[in-house]
Amino acid sequence: MLKSYRIAAPPAELGPAVQAAIDAKTKPPASLGRIEALALQLALCQHDLQPCAEPARLLLFAADHGLVAEGVSAWPQAVTGEMVRNFVHGGAAANAFARACGASITVIDAGVAGDLYWLDGLVGRRIAAGTRNARREDAMTASERDAALEAGAEVAVTAIDAGARVLLLGEMGIGNSASAALLAHALTGGPLPALTGPGAGLDAAGLAHKIAVLEAAAARRPDAKSGSAALAAFGGFEIAMMSGALVAAAAERTPIVVDGFIASVAALVAIDARPESRPWCVFAHRSTEPGHDAVLQHLAATPLLDLQMRLGEGTGALLALPLLRAACAMLSDMASFENAGVSRAPA
Amino acid sequence: MLKSYRIAAPPAELGPAVQAAIDAKTKPPASLGRIEALALQLALCQHDLQPCAEPARLLLFAADHGLVAEGVSAWPQAVTGEMVRNFVHGGAAANAFARACGASITVIDAGVAGDLYWLDGLVGRRIAAGTRNARREDAMTASERDAALEAGAEVAVTAIDAGARVLLLGEMGIGNSASAALLAHALTGGPLPALTGPGAGLDAAGLAHKIAVLEAAAARRPDAKSGSAALAAFGGFEIAMMSGALVAAAAERTPIVVDGFIASVAALVAIDARPESRPWCVFAHRSTEPGHDAVLQHLAATPLLDLQMRLGEGTGALLALPLLRAACAMLSDMASFENAGVSRAPA
Repeated sequence: MLKSYRIAAPPAELGPAVQAAIDAKTKPPASLGRIEALALQLALCQHDLQPCAEPARLLLFAADHGLVAEGVSAWPQAVTGEMVRNFVHGGAAANAFARACGASITVIDAGVAGDLYWLDGLVGRRIAAGTRNARREDAMTASERDAALEAGAEVAVTAIDAGARVLLLGEMGIGNSASAALLAHALTGGPLPALTGPGAGLDAAGLAHKIAVLEAAAARRPDAKSGSAALAAFGGFEIAMMSGALVAAAAERTPIVVDGFIASVAALVAIDARPESRPWCVFAHRSTEPGHDAVLQHLAATPLLDLQMRLGEGTGALLALPLLRAACAMLSDMASFENAGVSRAPA
Repeated sequence: MLKSYRIAAPPAELGPAVQAAIDAKTKPPASLGRIEALALQLALCQHDLQPCAEPARLLLFAADHGLVAEGVSAWPQAVTGEMVRNFVHGGAAANAFARACGASITVIDAGVAGDLYWLDGLVGRRIAAGTRNARREDAMTASERDAALEAGAEVAVTAIDAGARVLLLGEMGIGNSASAALLAHALTGGPLPALTGPGAGLDAAGLAHKIAVLEAAAARRPDAKSGSAALAAFGGFEIAMMSGALVAAAAERTPIVVDGFIASVAALVAIDARPESRPWCVFAHRSTEPGHDAVLQHLAATPLLDLQMRLGEGTGALLALPLLRAACAMLSDMASFENAGVSRAPA
């Protein structure tokens, strides 16, 4: 998967110097908790004693899912395209949060059903008009999958070339919590009932039906246990593009903020194929979607935020961005005990 | 306590209109979790369907504690004044975070031992050169306490008159986790060993000694069970000023972001005397200082963040500020289903 992207390990030898810089700042040792750990991670990822989380760009991938024909979502499929228009026009939660947090957004058509070519500002990378129905057949072919991975990587590299120092991953796609549950099942081995949730708002009967559909889809391809195989079997295009973007960001030494359940599953797929991309991931927000915990546990990840959200679109990643900025500010913008003339505690 | 400040209840009748505005936004109902609850709270506090968290100002109160003569802190008392200089010069964590998060800071000398009058930009409201030793005698007189409460209220009103729409409470004072533990013990009834922590960095022996000192101080004034009485008995000036600022902010319909353990104890004192100020409090961050949980439980508060920090200075409040801004942006800056032409889920 994306074998041409070379990912070098972060420079561990920089660690002691970063830690010494953190400990020289005017505060009790370790008193900034996870902000200190985040500063260390960002410094190593960027190979820089003074990492920087600005400019930051959200890559917001949208696509449709053939699985919705089986009734796995409470919302009509048309909402994916309608929300893409909303993103481009600036009216969605992701837009409002991005303006509030000082991030820009690239909206990518990864494979939305219905024509969106007329939308100015939309980046068109559609692989097809939605995936195939994974209950009946593979969601995509191997070449569609590879094209989606490459497109995601290319979008990430373009953003980095344009100056982004941090990327955020977000998505929109009616039905994509179903694909994500199938991928999580394939890669973590967890049971589907525990990995499947209401998504954007199923009731109990709808959730039971969704689990039955996903059990049947999983039974169709019990052999698809790698990230790469599972992606083709279960979709979707936006998930594949997020996986590709993550691998490329790691190769470009660019920290990548992973949103909620769907984006974390994209990280799971990417890390399954390219474990060396893991150090670049900052997990932003613990979703209320029940499958998220199992995915996070599998990745040994503890998100920065837990705000009981379940929207996607990169909203959790955007809300975590100020914490990355604060971590960078701690390193670049705080005085040391020596400079400020502040006494240290007697050792 | 601050009886001249009249606090009217938030306009509950505005609630349904705010909730309807939230539910009309292009997102699944309730999918933004605590951000939605925060938006509702801010709208009611400000009496405005489109609340605003900008400009935001951190009130950073500093004072010294006579209790440090008993060896309750790992750090020398001089650090309080040294850190005040650091705040005014812009080098502390609070300064770095405030710049990163777009907030301004007012630094107030509430009663630091040692002369700081020469520091340009410091707001001088000192009651005395530190409190008295609460192990031996009351930390302050009733008139000193009332002067501190009034000074805090006046500083808050000044900030609001100058345009602040949200205030943040932070503090600095070597030894103030000892005062805070005594206040929490007096007002929650919880046992001192559970409410007392290492503060800025005591080891196990130091912590055991701190608990013994606090047990003796508490035994000296077992009758001080109200916020007002406990404040005089146990200090400190910065805590009293934060309590006063909170009451005044509520009277001025201004949401107030409460930092960690010490600031939460100031809120506990204020709410004990003026329970009608509670709706204006936004609890920012769960400190690792062990007493914080008991205080939060007593106030039925769940902070927005849990980042394993224990610094104070308003750092937790500053990191929560972008969440308030996002909540406001959701109300003022997101499209509705109708405006954006997005389909709703069938009910």
